[in-house]
Amino acid sequence: MDEVLTGLLRPKSIAIIGASATPGKIGHTVVKNLVESGYQGGIYPVNPTADEILGLKVYKSVLDIPEPVDAAAITVPAKFVIDVTKECGEKGVKGLIVISSGFAEVGDTELEEELVRIANSYGMRVLGPNVVGTLSNSDNMNASFAPFLPLDGSASLVSQSGALLIAIDAITFTRRIGFDKLISIGNMSDVDFADTVAWLNEDENTKCITLYIEGITDGRRFIKESANTHKPIVVLKAGVSEHGAAAAASHTGSLAGAQKIYSAAFEQAGAIQATDLSDLFNCTLALSLQPPMQGDNLLVLTNGGGVGVLATDSAEEAGLPMKFAPEAVQEELKKHMPSFGSAKNPVDLTGMAGNEWYFDSTKYAFAHEWVDGLVVLYCETAMTNPMEIAKSLHRAITETGIKDKPVTISFVGGERSDEAMQWLVENGIPAYNDPHLAVKAMGTLRDYARLQELKNEPINNNHKVDKQAAMDIIEAVRANGRTGMTEIESKGIFKAYGLPVVQTSVVTSEEEAVETAESFGYPVVMKIVSPDILHKSDAGGVKVNIEDEVGVREAYKTILENAKAYKADAEIHGILIQEMAPWGTETIVGSVNDHTFGPTVMFGLGGIFVEVLKDVTFRVAPISEKEAQIMLDGIRGAPILDGVRGEAPRDRKALAEVLSRYAFMITDLSEEILESDANPILVYEEGKGVKVVDARIILTEK
Amino acid sequence: MDEVLTGLLRPKSIAIIGASATPGKIGHTVVKNLVESGYQGGIYPVNPTADEILGLKVYKSVLDIPEPVDAAAITVPAKFVIDVTKECGEKGVKGLIVISSGFAEVGDTELEEELVRIANSYGMRVLGPNVVGTLSNSDNMNASFAPFLPLDGSASLVSQSGALLIAIDAITFTRRIGFDKLISIGNMSDVDFADTVAWLNEDENTKCITLYIEGITDGRRFIKESANTHKPIVVLKAGVSEHGAAAAASHTGSLAGAQKIYSAAFEQAGAIQATDLSDLFNCTLALSLQPPMQGDNLLVLTNGGGVGVLATDSAEEAGLPMKFAPEAVQEELKKHMPSFGSAKNPVDLTGMAGNEWYFDSTKYAFAHEWVDGLVVLYCETAMTNPMEIAKSLHRAITETGIKDKPVTISFVGGERSDEAMQWLVENGIPAYNDPHLAVKAMGTLRDYARLQELKNEPINNNHKVDKQAAMDIIEAVRANGRTGMTEIESKGIFKAYGLPVVQTSVVTSEEEAVETAESFGYPVVMKIVSPDILHKSDAGGVKVNIEDEVGVREAYKTILENAKAYKADAEIHGILIQEMAPWGTETIVGSVNDHTFGPTVMFGLGGIFVEVLKDVTFRVAPISEKEAQIMLDGIRGAPILDGVRGEAPRDRKALAEVLSRYAFMITDLSEEILESDANPILVYEEGKGVKVVDARIILTEK
Repeated sequence: MDEVLTGLLRPKSIAIIGASATPGKIGHTVVKNLVESGYQGGIYPVNPTADEILGLKVYKSVLDIPEPVDAAAITVPAKFVIDVTKECGEKGVKGLIVISSGFAEVGDTELEEELVRIANSYGMRVLGPNVVGTLSNSDNMNASFAPFLPLDGSASLVSQSGALLIAIDAITFTRRIGFDKLISIGNMSDVDFADTVAWLNEDENTKCITLYIEGITDGRRFIKESANTHKPIVVLKAGVSEHGAAAAASHTGSLAGAQKIYSAAFEQAGAIQATDLSDLFNCTLALSLQPPMQGDNLLVLTNGGGVGVLATDSAEEAGLPMKFAPEAVQEELKKHMPSFGSAKNPVDLTGMAGNEWYFDSTKYAFAHEWVDGLVVLYCETAMTNPMEIAKSLHRAITETGIKDKPVTISFVGGERSDEAMQWLVENGIPAYNDPHLAVKAMGTLRDYARLQELKNEPINNNHKVDKQAAMDIIEAVRANGRTGMTEIESKGIFKAYGLPVVQTSVVTSEEEAVETAESFGYPVVMKIVSPDILHKSDAGGVKVNIEDEVGVREAYKTILENAKAYKADAEIHGILIQEMAPWGTETIVGSVNDHTFGPTVMFGLGGIFVEVLKDVTFRVAPISEKEAQIMLDGIRGAPILDGVRGEAPRDRKALAEVLSRYAFMITDLSEEILESDANPILVYEEGKGVKVVDARIILTEK
Repeated sequence: MDEVLTGLLRPKSIAIIGASATPGKIGHTVVKNLVESGYQGGIYPVNPTADEILGLKVYKSVLDIPEPVDAAAITVPAKFVIDVTKECGEKGVKGLIVISSGFAEVGDTELEEELVRIANSYGMRVLGPNVVGTLSNSDNMNASFAPFLPLDGSASLVSQSGALLIAIDAITFTRRIGFDKLISIGNMSDVDFADTVAWLNEDENTKCITLYIEGITDGRRFIKESANTHKPIVVLKAGVSEHGAAAAASHTGSLAGAQKIYSAAFEQAGAIQATDLSDLFNCTLALSLQPPMQGDNLLVLTNGGGVGVLATDSAEEAGLPMKFAPEAVQEELKKHMPSFGSAKNPVDLTGMAGNEWYFDSTKYAFAHEWVDGLVVLYCETAMTNPMEIAKSLHRAITETGIKDKPVTISFVGGERSDEAMQWLVENGIPAYNDPHLAVKAMGTLRDYARLQELKNEPINNNHKVDKQAAMDIIEAVRANGRTGMTEIESKGIFKAYGLPVVQTSVVTSEEEAVETAESFGYPVVMKIVSPDILHKSDAGGVKVNIEDEVGVREAYKTILENAKAYKADAEIHGILIQEMAPWGTETIVGSVNDHTFGPTVMFGLGGIFVEVLKDVTFRVAPISEKEAQIMLDGIRGAPILDGVRGEAPRDRKALAEVLSRYAFMITDLSEEILESDANPILVYEEGKGVKVVDARIILTEK
């Protein structure tokens, strides 16, 4: 565990620099909050002009404090922050909670950078500036100007919005969703999401890490630290609307949007993505109280047909379509319901179900090995008492002794149901006031399990490549003052990285044409290369399916004659010879070098799938072959690769291999390649591989 | 207004048949509930063995009651229901609320049918059987065994699930969503959703009609009555999972699912579809308190950047992407925020915003003509009082005097925010505890306005057709003992209904071949017709692009020779001659005769769009041309019709015309056509029309 961050987030003592005796001032509020939250460490107000605040001795300078100081909460105006930072450094403070604003958020990036530089030079870390502070129930510590500690719980929240953190602090009591810590991360000048995720992963009081993110600074570090955690992470990313991509130079660039890449990155980080604020709380509740769901068998118990049907719909939406339980399970369940009940799935105990039936069927079902996850629904009836039902359910679950299988609950009813659900949550079982939410929560627990399985897939970083050959081409292009590479240059790079490109070369004599064609193998395509002839076919400048030497010689002559006939004074650079790939299923692979996440690979099917449907998927590079396979399944047109209209299945294995090799290439050349397309890549029948027909690389500006 | 239904749902007097003196019995609960709800009409318990219940005189028979009886709530066992129904009929009761169970829901359909037959023969209507009863705040009437009247409000709920109705009754108080009436509709043996929708449309105390539906009986009547209402309808349809379509005989049949057709029908009914129980309440709150949103300009006011960004994401999702307000509006709004606020959209008043800024900016923005709908967000802060903010907002809205423009609100915070939101709701402004929900609610108000615009589109039911020609073909096929029609027969029907089919005919002589080809016009295609030659091309049995008489004669001979060479003893039915359509964009139109909604038309793009993506859309027939146009835009592949890859736009007008004509055809022949496909229909450039290349009709069994 990072000792410095522990000093910042679980300090044994805190100095409040800029502490004030005037109620209402932030420097006063922070001292008051620390005292009122029952903080047991040293509280040292610092202010050159005051003597006592709330009965505490005030020091003129942090240097005057006789005891060691772990953290300093700084509330002085921005212009004084540098000076007090130096004093904190001298004092040996571990971390600064810079509540003061007036830094990068108002444009003063320099001051912020200076603050971090000085703090780091003393070995201190900086939280903020422009933060609300940090709160921890397990430390009875409210080191912030948020009014009180949140409802106690086992999740911890890191929020990039201070206003939202304060609002959530209050919400915890009305929504009954508990947190151990609330950490305001502000401008993230130093301590960022990656730091807090790594630290919370080691924090004994945190079971689930909840993040409100507006933007990430170092995307790759965030993915790495998140993927390393053994605790669930749930993220609400604000600002998912697409940012403008009009200026993109490549096809892939025009398809990449912040949302799609963030979404891919969160998946690779193993993090659950919440869709809105309520969903953030609902996911947090499930992930902080229940284990992941390790298989696909969901069983639903209910006392009402209506909510059962609604749950069936929700299960399908959550990716957990309901199956009937085995006969033996149904037989046993039938013992706990009237004859007109149903032991299928959902199991309908009917409106006659009381505590006992609920208890017996829950205990039996939860313990049964077929069941991977249990959802219990209850519609409030006049004959039953919600709190008694809740207690029966809790006792049934507890008596099985099972701790590695999840259960979620929904009570549909009024105040008595709400109270019963509150009791369930306090006793470790997530309960929601809508059957849809209980099923969705189970889907989240399943998704979490699925994401964890992907984390340990090995990534091959030892592809045999000829990097020097690639760099030679790149340097030649740069020497030429260009960043756009030609098809032939781009293919050279691809070839150096072992991608199966359709070979292409420009020749300037008939002999060279024959030699080149022979080296490629027949059939070949030949095309005029002239800046003056744009519509090559119209000019008779294209010949396809050339089968032998005679054909090459004839085509060479004819194309030149046609070109001259078309435009007598055309400047002719030569004739392009290209290996002729047999037709296959069109796909596209490409890359962007994302501002936040760096080299990122894209996959899609060609033609209308990309052009009309924008049916593409992204991953931050490099990727494992397993991940490449998942990308192939991650588009709506995925069935195309299984073969449609009676076609044989396509060579997915070869395609996945090319995809992961491509991802390796853009990672290895991340300093050089800004955007790229391999479009189309033709995919043949299983065992027959793929061919990259066209290539385009745009280099970074240097 | 239907007098009989009014007698049933707003009775001036009620007899409780099967009334009981024993607490806990349903016959007791209903009497008690009527008394306790303060019902002012006559309450007449009926029981042959009791004298007095809860101080009310008990009658031996409904016939003994001296006053007129509007409604009878029946709680006697099923076997006695027929007898009491007859007595009610003799008495002149208007409607029966049959709470008793033991009818169709346990398989006794006959008893249920007898009940309805007898009741109707006396002019009585039946609610149920198997209902909870009916509740009405405006009549102080709880004629049910649900424990109390719901929270008062201006929506009315009709529920097909009794258990859910009872649970919702309790929920109204915890979720603060008010209803005037709760109507349990049970087995729907007589009074159904169409009846209640039509009646609630006339009910002075209902502003929004809320439906929980598991299945509809007469789908077309439901659409008609719903489309006729001038009040918003919001529907939660349970059981949206696809029903098996494996047995479907046509392409369209295999693509039709209950969900897609219900969804289309609700759209045609002008009803808003809720996605889950919470959404049902959220939509009801918005639609019962606010007018529709008549334009696309959404303005969002906020005091927190974070929730503002979240609202921007939600707006995009809700189909209301945010635009900047005009400069003048921004200038005015800037007066009510600090310099670091933002007058763009969302308008960020910053955390410093108090009552006054909220009041001024809300009043100005709500009154401005550019704004079609206003969403106000508030993040609870230490410096502001949520209730005061709420009152400022309410006053600002009220002072504008505007009543035809919607506003929704979200407060993010704790208990004080919840209380403030409750006050807002009680004062007519929908407020939600999540910015996402406030924006989504505005999206619902916009969707409602859009749906209403479509209601009055005229449907052309006067297409010039030759129905007799179609019926002659159908009768010939039926006489032949078939329901599957050949391509030529199917095209005959299409032609009779004016669809532009590619002409096809089978000939048996060379002369006839020439004559037919000349009548179609060149080029033509010719194919062998033989039950013994399935792979026509392999057998040399297909010739395309035949340009003239010589070609026809040559092809005729060659095809016959080839066929004989291929299989000497093949039975040859003749040679098919077909107009050769030039290639165009492939689309598919088809139909199913849905169990619930009758003839329903489908549209999709051909090829992979249908086969892989199942990218199709449905409408219950007939449809207006405007609706046909909307169908064309209702698929993901819609941009294809605008022309892709530099192609000219396709002839959408001609395609829409064919679609509405097709819908007319399947409606006109709804007794005859079970399923049909026009696949493909080739669509040409604008102004160049469409061609139906292949046709398939399956007739109903008679």
